[in-house]
Amino acid sequence: MKRKPLTEDSILKKILASCRPQPGSSMSKSIALGIGDDAALFRPKIREETILTCDWFLEGTHFLRDTHPPDSVGWKCLARAVSDIAAMGGTPRCFLLSLALPASLTGRWLDTFLAGLRSASRELGCALAGGDTTRRGEVLINVTVVGEVKAGHAVLRSGARAGDFVYVSGRLGEAELGLRFLKLSKKPLKPRNPLTQKHLYPEPRVALGRWLSDTRLASSMMDISDGLSSDLRRLCAASRVGARLEMERIPRVGIPDDALFQGIDSIRLALHGGDDYELLFTVPPRRLDLVPGSFQGVPLTLIGTITKKREIVLLEDGGRNRQLVIAGWDPFRERI
Amino acid sequence: MKRKPLTEDSILKKILASCRPQPGSSMSKSIALGIGDDAALFRPKIREETILTCDWFLEGTHFLRDTHPPDSVGWKCLARAVSDIAAMGGTPRCFLLSLALPASLTGRWLDTFLAGLRSASRELGCALAGGDTTRRGEVLINVTVVGEVKAGHAVLRSGARAGDFVYVSGRLGEAELGLRFLKLSKKPLKPRNPLTQKHLYPEPRVALGRWLSDTRLASSMMDISDGLSSDLRRLCAASRVGARLEMERIPRVGIPDDALFQGIDSIRLALHGGDDYELLFTVPPRRLDLVPGSFQGVPLTLIGTITKKREIVLLEDGGRNRQLVIAGWDPFRERI
Repeated sequence: MKRKPLTEDSILKKILASCRPQPGSSMSKSIALGIGDDAALFRPKIREETILTCDWFLEGTHFLRDTHPPDSVGWKCLARAVSDIAAMGGTPRCFLLSLALPASLTGRWLDTFLAGLRSASRELGCALAGGDTTRRGEVLINVTVVGEVKAGHAVLRSGARAGDFVYVSGRLGEAELGLRFLKLSKKPLKPRNPLTQKHLYPEPRVALGRWLSDTRLASSMMDISDGLSSDLRRLCAASRVGARLEMERIPRVGIPDDALFQGIDSIRLALHGGDDYELLFTVPPRRLDLVPGSFQGVPLTLIGTITKKREIVLLEDGGRNRQLVIAGWDPFRERI
Repeated sequence: MKRKPLTEDSILKKILASCRPQPGSSMSKSIALGIGDDAALFRPKIREETILTCDWFLEGTHFLRDTHPPDSVGWKCLARAVSDIAAMGGTPRCFLLSLALPASLTGRWLDTFLAGLRSASRELGCALAGGDTTRRGEVLINVTVVGEVKAGHAVLRSGARAGDFVYVSGRLGEAELGLRFLKLSKKPLKPRNPLTQKHLYPEPRVALGRWLSDTRLASSMMDISDGLSSDLRRLCAASRVGARLEMERIPRVGIPDDALFQGIDSIRLALHGGDDYELLFTVPPRRLDLVPGSFQGVPLTLIGTITKKREIVLLEDGGRNRQLVIAGWDPFRERI
């Protein structure tokens, strides 16, 4: 028996029932008025600036309906937008969900999607405040996240100076390897396979970003979403500087010893793989001693230095210098 | 000769060049940091709450690429989201633009779209603060608008009480008539044809909304985006009340005396037509004398009363009462 597709209002009710923060909870404090009116009302804290970011998450471009489980789609659409808040050194407060989907997906798919979204919302302390829904042949998602940071404390892309040291958190290329594994794998994978975990359920580095902003250790910062090569170029362009990376220092994904992964080069994944949502930041020389080797279990690795000359040079393992090729993800060049 | 499609970064630059507010202008004051970093920074005013809203504007669902000129798409995607700010009694401050489009439209189409967007941004005092772009086969737009309202002054949907009077601004059904004219018309129309003006370039009632909030005249308010019948039902549901409308009082679009429009019923357009972006609000009886017949040239019309009984009754011109049929636009029921 075919169920009657839901109306827009009843889909809103479903979203609300799944994701509304508990009244009185710390998460709901900053929301004066949530879903159900023309707009949401947010109470800004005094002496804080509001951080605003929005992110597309589109079927066929950013995820595949047959490959990506709906709860991963729900988790990731919020996590990747929250990563932009982390990259400014801020704290996520609330989000707006714009969701377009086929009427046929308003049952089980939507329920599982909302379960993933609810997990991310709770884990990241970011409450649903509003949104917009409509019908569409494919799943289209846009998430706006609102965060806050002490006035004057936001860490920008533009603060890097020649002589600063370049750091990354985590190990790069893990998400890209996970994506390839998902696509190569013939049989369905366990829901929490460690190889695909980072691609499906990325964890934005909120605590690390906030710590780097509070301590003012980082002179510049951004998150790595399109790959180190593309994103470091953006940071250098914003700061009007260049950089020199040492290939052997770059922390990279380990490639499993399996025929499936033959020919996959971990340094290529680390330089150009997308979706890692690690933090890329720079530290002035006088503050270098204050950077620990890891933060809450996440390794922090020095990978190079900022240079006055506006080019990005990679010192290869053999000792040869070459210009770093920019080959991170650009939606106007390629698709997943 | 086929031009090389732009990269994501160069599209961002194009958007920025077209829409960046002048530094030092009143529009740019609340934006501490605009496009070009991981996120935008907004400086909230003290003793104000932040209003947040987002709106889909999708090719094939909300507009048609062949029918709607790109500058109208640019104008309207912002204007309709700003209308939600007006509906709360707030002042728009800034917006985020999420834009997905085919590489083939990154030339002239994008330029004209941005010109329309820039006009709306300037006229509505709402500055571009950030966004996200990607490639897609169809044009997908999502706009997030940030507004502000004095703390405690936002006018909600939930404030209507039995005995309040129901008002609307403007004349209803004009946008729907414009859409029908656009679709019926065989030849290309003049860019500023008065019949299509309201459908293509709607003007959100920001000054009126703010005045109703400042004076505390309105006990409840929302904008009419899906049609009076659907939207009044939402207001009544939020306020847990009903309403009684008098059909003869409803200010409605005039139908031109032309064979093209034969059979089109102005009251149906006024009750169920979408996209008007007029304000629907309620006024307590003791404040009735303070409501003028028009505000800045926009008529304000009393169309009925709020009732305790939770049903919406329409008193027809002949004097017969009937339940109002809810037949406004619902994307899960129909498409344009």
